[in-house]
Amino acid sequence: MPQISNKGIEMPASPIRKLTPFADQAKKDGKHIYHLNIGQPDIETPEIMLNALKGIDFKVWAYTASEGTASYRAKLAQYYNKLHYNITPTDILVTNGGSEAITIAMQSCLNPGEEIIIPEPFYANYNGFACSADIIVKPIMSYIENGFALPDIAAFEELITEKTKAIAICNPNNPTGYLYSRAELEALRDLCIKHDLYLFSDEAYREFCYDGKEFISPMHLEGLEEHVVVLDTVSKRYSACGARIGCLITKNKALYQTALKFAQARLSPSLEGQIAGEAAVDTPDSYFEAVSTEYTARRDTLVNGLNAIDGVFCPNPGGAFYVVARLPIDNSDRFCQWMLEDFSYENQTVMMAPATGFYSSENAGRNEVRMAYVLNQQDLKKALACIEEGLRVYPGTTRS
Amino acid sequence: MPQISNKGIEMPASPIRKLTPFADQAKKDGKHIYHLNIGQPDIETPEIMLNALKGIDFKVWAYTASEGTASYRAKLAQYYNKLHYNITPTDILVTNGGSEAITIAMQSCLNPGEEIIIPEPFYANYNGFACSADIIVKPIMSYIENGFALPDIAAFEELITEKTKAIAICNPNNPTGYLYSRAELEALRDLCIKHDLYLFSDEAYREFCYDGKEFISPMHLEGLEEHVVVLDTVSKRYSACGARIGCLITKNKALYQTALKFAQARLSPSLEGQIAGEAAVDTPDSYFEAVSTEYTARRDTLVNGLNAIDGVFCPNPGGAFYVVARLPIDNSDRFCQWMLEDFSYENQTVMMAPATGFYSSENAGRNEVRMAYVLNQQDLKKALACIEEGLRVYPGTTRS
Repeated sequence: MPQISNKGIEMPASPIRKLTPFADQAKKDGKHIYHLNIGQPDIETPEIMLNALKGIDFKVWAYTASEGTASYRAKLAQYYNKLHYNITPTDILVTNGGSEAITIAMQSCLNPGEEIIIPEPFYANYNGFACSADIIVKPIMSYIENGFALPDIAAFEELITEKTKAIAICNPNNPTGYLYSRAELEALRDLCIKHDLYLFSDEAYREFCYDGKEFISPMHLEGLEEHVVVLDTVSKRYSACGARIGCLITKNKALYQTALKFAQARLSPSLEGQIAGEAAVDTPDSYFEAVSTEYTARRDTLVNGLNAIDGVFCPNPGGAFYVVARLPIDNSDRFCQWMLEDFSYENQTVMMAPATGFYSSENAGRNEVRMAYVLNQQDLKKALACIEEGLRVYPGTTRS
Repeated sequence: MPQISNKGIEMPASPIRKLTPFADQAKKDGKHIYHLNIGQPDIETPEIMLNALKGIDFKVWAYTASEGTASYRAKLAQYYNKLHYNITPTDILVTNGGSEAITIAMQSCLNPGEEIIIPEPFYANYNGFACSADIIVKPIMSYIENGFALPDIAAFEELITEKTKAIAICNPNNPTGYLYSRAELEALRDLCIKHDLYLFSDEAYREFCYDGKEFISPMHLEGLEEHVVVLDTVSKRYSACGARIGCLITKNKALYQTALKFAQARLSPSLEGQIAGEAAVDTPDSYFEAVSTEYTARRDTLVNGLNAIDGVFCPNPGGAFYVVARLPIDNSDRFCQWMLEDFSYENQTVMMAPATGFYSSENAGRNEVRMAYVLNQQDLKKALACIEEGLRVYPGTTRS
C-alpha cells in the first residue's frame, strides 16, 4: 500500500472541526447544541444576490477568464474605490473563496522554507495553507490583556531574519475581533518598507466594525503599493460563505502576473458565483446597517454576559463577529470536549472552539476559547447560561 | 520591492492562453476566429441542472461540509455504482473543480521532490499543479503513429526510481482523445502493484467514448483498491465547466483522511454547485446519446478533413473531444501564432493549441497541434478550409 506524503501527515486537521464527532454524538443523545464554534452567520444573504443566482440565463455553464469576468472585476473595482482603495479592475484576481486567495498569495510570494510572521492567535487555516505551500509561519504573540492589539514593532523586528518574506494580518481579526488602528498599520507599513516585506491583509470582516470605529486598510497608506496583497471574500460581507468567491488585490504588477499563472492552472472561478457577486455589490446600505446593529447587540450580550461570570475575562472587540475569552479552566481542548460529551444544562450545551487551535506557540491558549456570535440574542443568553453552569461544575476548574 | 517566489517564476504559463493576445488583435482587425484551441464545449448544459440552480431556495448561502454535502455524495455514489465502481459516499470528496482534485491528490500522495510518471502529450495544467505541489513530472513518450496508445510497460519500468510514487493517466485522453483498453489498464495495474505506486485516473471525459467502445476505469480492476485515485469533474460531462465542481474518489481510507485535511483548510465546495450537480445525475440518457452522436459526427468531419490535406496525419481517437494532428510545419508555436497574426482566408482564421505545450520533453510536439472539436460541423468545415489554405501559404512549410 503506497505511503501518504509527509506533507499529508503534517497537514494540520481543522481545529474547528475536530470536536465534530463529539457534537454528533451529543445530538444523537438528544442534546440541543448552541454552535458558537464556527463563523457561519445565520444572517440572510442579500436578496439581490440570491435573485441574481435564481435569474441566471446562460445556456452553457462556461468557464470564465481565469482572473474573473471583466464585468465582475469592474464592479468590484467600483466597490473598492468607494472605500478609497484607488485600484483598477486589472489589480483584482477573482478566486475560489478567500482560501484560494491566501494560498495563491503564499505560493506567489514565498519560497519553500521562507517565513511569514503572523500575530497569534490567528485564523487556524493559515497553518494549513502554509503547510500546503511549504512555508513557515512565525507566530508573534498578542495578548488578551490589551484586547489582542498589534504586538510591539520591536518584537516583530526580533523575529525578522533573511528568510522573512511577509507579514500577514487579519483585520478586523479572526479570532480576536481586534480592529487595527491607523497608527498600528502605519507602524507595520514602515516595517514592511524597511525590510522589504509583503504585507498580506486579510479583510474578510471589513464590513463588521462597531461603535463608529473606522476601518483602515494598508491600501489606504502611501508607499506600500508594491507590498500590499489584500485577501478578500464575499463569504462574511454578504453571508455567502457557500458561494466560494473571493479575490486577491495587488498593485504589484509582477506579483499579479505570477498569481495569474496559478489561477490559470485551475482555469476559472465559478461563473454563477461571479454573477451573484456582481449583483451583491449593489446591496443597499440598509442591509449593512441592520447587520451591524444586530451584531453590535449580540457582541454586547455575549461580552457582558461572559464578563459577568466568575473568573471569566473577555475583551470587547471592535470588529468581526468573534471573541476570544479567558476562562477559569485547565485546558480548553478538554473543556470544550467535556461540554459536548459530559455536560448538559436543561438538555442543552454549547460548542466552542478551543483557542489552542489559533496559536502556533505550544501551550498557548489553553485557558481561552473562541466564540462566534452568530446566533440571535435569545440563543446567546441560553448559551451563556450553559457556559456559566458548565464552568461551575467542570472538574478542571482553576477557580480557587 | 519584494521578490516573487522562485515557484512563482517557475510556474508555467498556460500554453492554451499564451496566444490570446494575438487572437485579441486578430479580432480587433476584424477577422473571424474559429476556436479549436480550448475545451469549452458549445453543447448546452442539461436543463435539469440549470433549473436546479434557478430553483435554489436557501436564504443563507452557507458553507457545506468540507467533503461535500451528504445528499450530493449519496447521489454521486449512485451514479458511479451504475458504472460498477462499487463505492460508498464516504469514498467521495467533492472539490472545487477537477483542478482541485488533482492538486489535493498530488499533495496528499507525493512528497516535494518525488516523481509522477505521465504519458505525454498530457493535459498541460498537470505541470502547473506539479510545480505548485513541488513534485516532478516524468514524462513517458506516446506516439502519434499508433494513435498515442499506452507506452510499453518496459518503458515505464525504465523510468521508475525510488522517488517514483505515482502514475497518472487521463482516460479518455486530453489532448489525444485516446481511449485506454482493458489490457492496457491491466498492465498498469500489475505495474502499480509491483512497485507500490498510486494510479491517478483523470476521467473528466468518461462520457465521451465513441464507436461503441467501452470505457474501463482502474476502479473496475481488482487488487488496486488502495492505489487508485479517480479525479473527476462535472465540467465536460454536463457541459458545466463554469460550475467548478469535481471530486476525488479513493477507497484508501488513510489517503481519504489526508485529502480531507487539505479540503478542510479551504472550508467547502460551493453549495449551489453541489445542488446543481446533484440534480445533474438525473440527466436523461437521451442527452448523452445526442451529445455522443453530435461529437462522433464532428470528430469524423474533423479527422477526415484533416487527413485529406496534403501532408497532414491525424489518428481517429476513441474518446474525449480532442485530436492531436501532425502538420507539415517547422514549428507549431510559430504556425499557430502566424495563423492569428499574419493569415486570413475570406477574413477568417483558426486558433489551435500548439502541441508543444502538452509535452514536457524538449522539442517534442513541434509539428503537432491539438484541436478541440467543440464547434458545429459547418464551422468545422470552414475551419478546415482555413487550415488547408494556411498550410498552403505558411512560409515554414516542410512540404517538399
